[in-house]
Amino acid sequence: MSKILVFGHQNPDTDAIGAAIAFAYLQDALREETVEAVALGNPSEETQYALDHFGLKAPRVIKNAKDDTENVMLVDHNEFQQSVSDITDVNILAVVDHHRIANFETANPLYYRAEPVGCTSTIVLKLYKEADVTIPKAIAGIMLSAIISDTLLFKSPTCTPEDVAAAKELAILAETDYEAYGLEMLKAGTNLSDKSANFLLDLDAKSFPMGDKNIRIGQVNTVDLDEVFNRQAELEAAMKEENNKKGYDLFVLIVTNILDSDSELLVVGDAKEKIETAFNTKLENNRALLKGVVSRKKQVVPQLTEAFA
Amino acid sequence: MSKILVFGHQNPDTDAIGAAIAFAYLQDALREETVEAVALGNPSEETQYALDHFGLKAPRVIKNAKDDTENVMLVDHNEFQQSVSDITDVNILAVVDHHRIANFETANPLYYRAEPVGCTSTIVLKLYKEADVTIPKAIAGIMLSAIISDTLLFKSPTCTPEDVAAAKELAILAETDYEAYGLEMLKAGTNLSDKSANFLLDLDAKSFPMGDKNIRIGQVNTVDLDEVFNRQAELEAAMKEENNKKGYDLFVLIVTNILDSDSELLVVGDAKEKIETAFNTKLENNRALLKGVVSRKKQVVPQLTEAFA
Repeated sequence: MSKILVFGHQNPDTDAIGAAIAFAYLQDALREETVEAVALGNPSEETQYALDHFGLKAPRVIKNAKDDTENVMLVDHNEFQQSVSDITDVNILAVVDHHRIANFETANPLYYRAEPVGCTSTIVLKLYKEADVTIPKAIAGIMLSAIISDTLLFKSPTCTPEDVAAAKELAILAETDYEAYGLEMLKAGTNLSDKSANFLLDLDAKSFPMGDKNIRIGQVNTVDLDEVFNRQAELEAAMKEENNKKGYDLFVLIVTNILDSDSELLVVGDAKEKIETAFNTKLENNRALLKGVVSRKKQVVPQLTEAFA
Repeated sequence: MSKILVFGHQNPDTDAIGAAIAFAYLQDALREETVEAVALGNPSEETQYALDHFGLKAPRVIKNAKDDTENVMLVDHNEFQQSVSDITDVNILAVVDHHRIANFETANPLYYRAEPVGCTSTIVLKLYKEADVTIPKAIAGIMLSAIISDTLLFKSPTCTPEDVAAAKELAILAETDYEAYGLEMLKAGTNLSDKSANFLLDLDAKSFPMGDKNIRIGQVNTVDLDEVFNRQAELEAAMKEENNKKGYDLFVLIVTNILDSDSELLVVGDAKEKIETAFNTKLENNRALLKGVVSRKKQVVPQLTEAFA
């Protein structure tokens, strides 16, 4: 019997890991094949906090899929440049996601479930209900953690009423006070002081083809913007090096204050004027404060995509 | 209040029209906006037979979407070259489909529901149930017709147990003997003798980018292969002209005998040897008989895609 691997995007966040664990458990219950959740990187401190809290092991990290299997399922992403390195060599059976669709194609029909909600795990909860499969407490806990993470405890504009309802339902199954737990989990991910510049850049970064440019967009959460911008020179040097090494035309780092729900951008590379167009702002010292901006997906990527179109 | 248009692919078949009518009715019931089913071409004789049988009007044919609205929903297709001419200028809110995904992208997250079943209308039935909306008799009838059409009355290898179950459920709602009605409807689509060669080529044709080639694949159903191949010279001349005029590298016409469930290919253009590779056959007089082949999607497109990869 062949195996099926389920994984989220590179530089996994809590939803990429949590939705993979939850969707793999569901598919394993429904299918004859063994379905295993894996990851394209190690968990962040936030994710590790959530895994530890609910007594779950971090999924095994894979470098490619073909060594294990021909058949994969993607959660929390679809764009190939965010996926496993050999994604074009394997058969994609299913995708569960809440992002735009781009740079994605298959040779065969597949199961694809995307909804414009705040978190993949909100959709996975729906799939459990449709299949009438009971969610174990620990899995409910990691799904809850994913929703808290993606919506910044419901404060992100990506958060929908469905996400809030899903989180409350999962909190009951996980026997968890979601507000107290959620704030502790988010804070666990903002311990940045002892991290290298490269670590911060890579923590939650994705690549996006826009027009003929290759844009890298990273995001770090903090409870104090100064803690990050005190290291601006060091970060800029590392961003410049990444651009040169990986061929990015532009590196955008979104530094988000999760308490105030604002973000400040740090920008290195070509076409910086597109940033000014996209956000109707002026860069000063390569920086721009964006009030009320916390969501890369909803408040940064579409605006930049349009500016580069 | 803005309007939303719902449509299937160019050269609409019964599912492209039927699923558009059914999904538009559902979305209209669920949303504040007016949701209208439209079409990218006139109904075939088969589809017209089904519309007449259930007392439905053919959807209005549109040339572009932007004149009506900013917001559209696609059924039974996703590839842009099969969609409305200005698809990249409008906002795609939702897709319901059962094909491979290719040449499709959006700037924003959307609702995307694809399942590897035989017919879009089978998925639309599921969406009615999830939303708990009652299906009117005529709409159940056109959905039933779509499933019969796409699965050739359950004989196509694309047909899944879900399609059969959906058809039987819809047949009860439509108060229709699906076997007797289904055969009559399919036969209504095989009246080819009084049609021009160009009409036959365009009846159910789609374009597919494969490798660096642009492949056109048409399909006609018949109860007598000779009736079509008696006109081979005329068809070849028309295919050659289409290739020249529209820039297709290869034109493949699948002539399917719906009684025997076999197909014979007629092939005009470059790279004909790829046909031989894909189907492990030899073309004779530009023709190849493929026993048991009735499905473009499952038995022709993936094989050709691989041969051109």
